[in-house]
Amino acid sequence: MEYEAEARRSLQRIAELQPLVHQITNVVVTNDTANLTLGFGALPVMAYAPEEVAEMASVSQALVLNIGTLSTGEIEAMLIAGRAANQHGVPIVLDPVGAGATRFRTESALRLLGELEITTLRGNRGEIGALVGAGEVRGVEAVGREDPRQVAAAAATQFGMTVAVTGEIDIVVSQTGTLAVANGHPLLGRITGSGCMATVAIGIFLTAGDDPLLQTALALATYGLAAERAAAGDPGPGTFRARLLDEVAALGSSGVEGLRISTG
Amino acid sequence: MEYEAEARRSLQRIAELQPLVHQITNVVVTNDTANLTLGFGALPVMAYAPEEVAEMASVSQALVLNIGTLSTGEIEAMLIAGRAANQHGVPIVLDPVGAGATRFRTESALRLLGELEITTLRGNRGEIGALVGAGEVRGVEAVGREDPRQVAAAAATQFGMTVAVTGEIDIVVSQTGTLAVANGHPLLGRITGSGCMATVAIGIFLTAGDDPLLQTALALATYGLAAERAAAGDPGPGTFRARLLDEVAALGSSGVEGLRISTG
Amino acid sequence: MEYEAEARRSLQRIAELQPLVHQITNVVVTNDTANLTLGFGALPVMAYAPEEVAEMASVSQALVLNIGTLSTGEIEAMLIAGRAANQHGVPIVLDPVGAGATRFRTESALRLLGELEITTLRGNRGEIGALVGAGEVRGVEAVGREDPRQVAAAAATQFGMTVAVTGEIDIVVSQTGTLAVANGHPLLGRITGSGCMATVAIGIFLTAGDDPLLQTALALATYGLAAERAAAGDPGPGTFRARLLDEVAALGSSGVEGLRISTG
Repeated sequence: MEYEAEARRSLQRIAELQPLVHQITNVVVTNDTANLTLGFGALPVMAYAPEEVAEMASVSQALVLNIGTLSTGEIEAMLIAGRAANQHGVPIVLDPVGAGATRFRTESALRLLGELEITTLRGNRGEIGALVGAGEVRGVEAVGREDPRQVAAAAATQFGMTVAVTGEIDIVVSQTGTLAVANGHPLLGRITGSGCMATVAIGIFLTAGDDPLLQTALALATYGLAAERAAAGDPGPGTFRARLLDEVAALGSSGVEGLRISTG
Repeated sequence: MEYEAEARRSLQRIAELQPLVHQITNVVVTNDTANLTLGFGALPVMAYAPEEVAEMASVSQALVLNIGTLSTGEIEAMLIAGRAANQHGVPIVLDPVGAGATRFRTESALRLLGELEITTLRGNRGEIGALVGAGEVRGVEAVGREDPRQVAAAAATQFGMTVAVTGEIDIVVSQTGTLAVANGHPLLGRITGSGCMATVAIGIFLTAGDDPLLQTALALATYGLAAERAAAGDPGPGTFRARLLDEVAALGSSGVEGLRISTG
Repeated sequence: MEYEAEARRSLQRIAELQPLVHQITNVVVTNDTANLTLGFGALPVMAYAPEEVAEMASVSQALVLNIGTLSTGEIEAMLIAGRAANQHGVPIVLDPVGAGATRFRTESALRLLGELEITTLRGNRGEIGALVGAGEVRGVEAVGREDPRQVAAAAATQFGMTVAVTGEIDIVVSQTGTLAVANGHPLLGRITGSGCMATVAIGIFLTAGDDPLLQTALALATYGLAAERAAAGDPGPGTFRARLLDEVAALGSSGVEGLRISTG
């Protein structure tokens, strides 16, 4: 009940604030994450050029970095944008897509983690595990058996930030506590970008409250709840994709009954 | 009635000509604009490499330039493509996405406006206002209260081309007159790329007639009419996106009754 | 009947193997091809950076190269990835999007064909015809009247690989035989990326069997069958897109009755 009240408050703040969410993300999911951002009532802006990313990040309310189709130039742009965000107190979310799959991804993610002050790191068990030296990654999909709670806790300690390891149960760990989110649906695993959209949801919710642990969990739970509703009737993944956006956009009117957040 | 007849004629010409529409556009919307182009019965081609853009633009029937995720290299490619289009009499539409949000965007848009002969400039009030020194832009979404008619008229005078300022009412201004388009639906504001798709619709319609003022208004009205039909039953934005493409593709058979174009 | 049994076996192998399919593709279709890959039960990974493509290709089960929005840098990355794939016995599929439309595309495709050992080359008649010096291409859409069987046979002989020329009837030619695939639906021509998705389907099926001729035909037939089912009730292209993904994902449970493959 308390979490539902917090989620309602956050959704209302987002609707009032219409936060600008600057996204430097991969080419696969950019349309999906822009639509998700609008669905939550926030404003997306994609800007990648080194000439403009500092200026854009400075006027944004959140910055989302996603290395899904990274390049050397894009990592440089992320660093420029991230430093500007840090200077202006703009929260940063990092999605280390495919960390562990190639050295370039692992090292680029570690570089961003080392040089920027990041609020929340979100990945699957394999990606976050690779960053703490504990996992294996096959492509950008996680394959492994490590305990996500251990992986999240290790990363939170090592990097000193809020860490979300998403999966069947999402685990969110910060220095102050642990939350588990049971919302979500297996169909999310049948569409591309479902993780990247979760990361953007976190960025959006970070604009609506001061506690990264809580806001990260609220974002994942709310997004997962919309996915559960979109999966009603067991549609195929193509239909599910469209309905997911419908349900995210309807959260303000449909309400958030059904959030499943528990202390870790 | 007269405008409906003109719209039918244009749609038929597009179906017969199957114009090739060369698009140098942003990574967020490229799939959407390609599908919209096919929906209208035209052929999309995305080509960005400096080695080929002049050749591609020369054999196209329209060139669409969109700076939504611009880079220095992409602006150079736009200039190469644009000069080739100008040499071959291929009409150019420019969408200055996010002009005013960063200096890089404003300056890049002004450079394209200065160095190329552009047929139609389309943006929201904030973007076009920024280009005439009158507005503020927050990200790529317009926030402000200026009169779109004044903004469009000022831009048409300053740049010497047809200018469309789209919003609740779209205003199209050229040296020869003003048209207002009342078609459209608020759901367009809930999906990404709705403005970028409007720009591509203009590019397509410019291949079907010689009067940029009229063709620009017909494009916006026809696209807006399809959006109204797609919004029937008040779907969520995910469902609306799919239906919008359905309705654009059905314009030839559904007809264009309901166009709302008036002299300014 | 025999082909249906082979298709069932291939789909089951794909479901068991969950092959990683590395795609270096164009920005227009990347979301669609990633979703298609997941729909077939395989895992997509998009990686373009020269620093990582060799490593990613080496651990993948198939490599898909698509020049739809090529650049000099991307062609270099394709060559690096392709050489790594060749060293590790990873099959490569090439989609020469727009070959013939510009010299840069034709020459880049020929360079990839010359420097890499490619398993299957897939394109429309105009594209493949351009590569064997026999066709004309207008943008990325084929316009012409050449016999696709002759074009496919000429390319298979010239390049020494399996060649698929897709159209109303898909023709697949290798050194060992010819297969014709009659599955498919005209609505595929109304959405962008339908050819690029066919190419990815081939890449996925190449991981499930050793005969490129057969696997290529099975991929095209299975994908075409899903399109036929998605087109039931004559939806618009926006709705068809979503249903196509639904039907691909349902192939395992819906079965493959209705495949139309014949010896050439």
